Amino acid sequence: MSKTTKTNFSLTRRKILSGSLAVGSFAALKTAASEQNALNHPPNVPEWTSYLGDGVDVTPYGLPSEYESDVIRRNVGWLTATTESSVNFTPLQDLEGIVTPNGLCFERHHSGVAEVNPDDFRLLINGLVDREMIFTLADLKRFPQTNKFFFLECAANGGMEWRGAQLNGCQFTFGMIHNVQYTGVKLSDLLLETGIKANAKWMLAEGSDSAGLTRSVPIEKVLDDCMIAWAMNGEALRPEQGYPARLVVPGWEGNMWIKWVRRLEFGDMPYMTREETSKYTDLMTDGKARMFTWVMEAKSVITAPSPEKSILSKGLHQIRGLAWSGRGKITRVDVSVDGGKNWTTAKLHGPVMDKSLTRFTLPFEWNGDELLLQSRAVDETGYVQPTIKELQNVRGVNSIYHNNSIATWLVNKNGTVDNVRLG
Amino acid sequence: MSKTTKTNFSLTRRKILSGSLAVGSFAALKTAASEQNALNHPPNVPEWTSYLGDGVDVTPYGLPSEYESDVIRRNVGWLTATTESSVNFTPLQDLEGIVTPNGLCFERHHSGVAEVNPDDFRLLINGLVDREMIFTLADLKRFPQTNKFFFLECAANGGMEWRGAQLNGCQFTFGMIHNVQYTGVKLSDLLLETGIKANAKWMLAEGSDSAGLTRSVPIEKVLDDCMIAWAMNGEALRPEQGYPARLVVPGWEGNMWIKWVRRLEFGDMPYMTREETSKYTDLMTDGKARMFTWVMEAKSVITAPSPEKSILSKGLHQIRGLAWSGRGKITRVDVSVDGGKNWTTAKLHGPVMDKSLTRFTLPFEWNGDELLLQSRAVDETGYVQPTIKELQNVRGVNSIYHNNSIATWLVNKNGTVDNVRLG
Repeated sequence: MSKTTKTNFSLTRRKILSGSLAVGSFAALKTAASEQNALNHPPNVPEWTSYLGDGVDVTPYGLPSEYESDVIRRNVGWLTATTESSVNFTPLQDLEGIVTPNGLCFERHHSGVAEVNPDDFRLLINGLVDREMIFTLADLKRFPQTNKFFFLECAANGGMEWRGAQLNGCQFTFGMIHNVQYTGVKLSDLLLETGIKANAKWMLAEGSDSAGLTRSVPIEKVLDDCMIAWAMNGEALRPEQGYPARLVVPGWEGNMWIKWVRRLEFGDMPYMTREETSKYTDLMTDGKARMFTWVMEAKSVITAPSPEKSILSKGLHQIRGLAWSGRGKITRVDVSVDGGKNWTTAKLHGPVMDKSLTRFTLPFEWNGDELLLQSRAVDETGYVQPTIKELQNVRGVNSIYHNNSIATWLVNKNGTVDNVRLG
Repeated sequence: MSKTTKTNFSLTRRKILSGSLAVGSFAALKTAASEQNALNHPPNVPEWTSYLGDGVDVTPYGLPSEYESDVIRRNVGWLTATTESSVNFTPLQDLEGIVTPNGLCFERHHSGVAEVNPDDFRLLINGLVDREMIFTLADLKRFPQTNKFFFLECAANGGMEWRGAQLNGCQFTFGMIHNVQYTGVKLSDLLLETGIKANAKWMLAEGSDSAGLTRSVPIEKVLDDCMIAWAMNGEALRPEQGYPARLVVPGWEGNMWIKWVRRLEFGDMPYMTREETSKYTDLMTDGKARMFTWVMEAKSVITAPSPEKSILSKGLHQIRGLAWSGRGKITRVDVSVDGGKNWTTAKLHGPVMDKSLTRFTLPFEWNGDELLLQSRAVDETGYVQPTIKELQNVRGVNSIYHNNSIATWLVNKNGTVDNVRLG
């Protein structure tokens, strides 16, 4: 079928941009008829209308269409020495809404995916508790449950951008993040069973993968909203996300969300593990490092148009993106098409939830001009997402972690999009 | 590892049941230590701690753990003559939260799964419009977008229960439902482009599968909240759910949610298609049939314990379930353990959304007695989910569709669970 059936959006774009395109504008709807009829020919009668398709016994666990085979996690070969201690990236540019499908949630491993037999899963709670205890998975499921959407972002998301690597992809510059609904038990509920001593100020969480990944979490955060989760988006955790159970540390860097968790130890000091001393600290210009920089500050990304999503024609488009904050709810997202000189507030799509991805959209009419596309998130604490210059003025250029600066997509006159650094 | 590491919940169960187990009860937490230490031996050092697992290049699109291979859609061989015109069922008993993973959303086809090439997708809008138009998928994505969680329930969900079939499974008696976040364009926005005539009172929606499934939708519903959706839970619609685009008719019976949609025709009368005359009508005792019974009324299910989810031991458990209403939000769910004599209000887990599944839980101490477990949903219109007797008093026993009655799970003394009919 030819492309000549494309519709012409010029007639109603002003209505759309002025906001009259909304439920209730029924009068406008009835007068939207126009002199131009885009009906060039009737729809074809395609092949798939002529035969019986697969029955209901063919895919007990369904998969995406073969036409979506490029919507996958991707890794960068040169980034790490091995694929077992490495990362891949969520294809944010292809996703809509706020749910990340489990099969597309980015992976970050230190010794590959531990394949845990759930019958042999045990969680030990020890140290400064009143009663050291071991829990099976079935035990954990007998506690009161909580169900919450949270984003999980790697501290190094966008890390290659600090020094201007400018990887030309939304997926590689922003894709170390995902957002799912977790089901599990709050640690504040679980610890009612063990008790904790008055001098228990820190918790060490330890994974059962061969990296034995360990991180310290302050007791205030443990008792605020940390969970042991066994399900994501309704089904069991995926193996690469810590099956059968992981620690959830809402709004804080992903490295702390210990997968395949086997032990929680309580102590009176931080444990100073490799992952919070040698790694996951921010090296400043004076040679000292910021430690325990756990919170993922407010950030946003325009997922389309983006380096992978060129603009294919002039006329009306929807600028789409995601915003999030480790400190709470997103309250506003502004979009600029001129590199930050002028800003327009985008529409936020509900549900807008605490420490969860929030979808935003903004209608935009492209006339073929070059654009410098930016988005800027604001959260409920009043924090405004900074520029890379503002961030580097404070932190220098040694950083790998915690780059939450505003990115810039250059839209070229041919509609292609590049990741650029301004100024 | 032996089962002797199971913890003993008797010490804190009263606190849990009385509601003191909550954030803020830190004093209670610190005194929860007990005379009994369940730490019989330390955790084992399992096989998976001793080797490198799969790297980040192994599963570009991830799948569940092999230990979860029984969490699948299932069909009933004897139910239909062919698998192409048949149904399978969502394994609700294994799911948590409110998101149904795309791979587990039940299927209902009339001619199997149409395998549509998205480049050849066209949506024709014709009939009583000001301007007949054809839209490509790219065209649709240029309109303002909406992102909403909605349940989709087949009108025949639980249909085998009307005459007391009592299929012994949560999956088979309740599993023709799923709940995902849809992304698409509202018809009220799309129709601004075509306009509609003053006498356009009904819309015919037509699928491009070889069944050419067609249904009539009244214009008020069309303009209220119907959508053409191209994404579910963030990614493209699955083939079996109408890829690349389907009609979404929030809160109304699933048969109307035309998959692989190719045409929307506007007229001044209902189209009286096979699917709203011969089928999807409710045969009453006087031989007449109720037509156009679109709304899926308030309903609920206890997913665990359930026929597939026995109670394995005495002590504390969490009764878990789902509630929904095609008329709006769920406001309350009551749970009975004595066949409806006494009711306790369950906890609703947010976000509680319009025409979306809502998760509820209730802590419960099982002492080994026989139970008659029931749940009863109430929605924001004040509608209360009825008993099967109440429903049959009005509709007789010829019905197949729209069984939203309260189900009863018999918990036997050995902890197994049966689907039973009371009275």
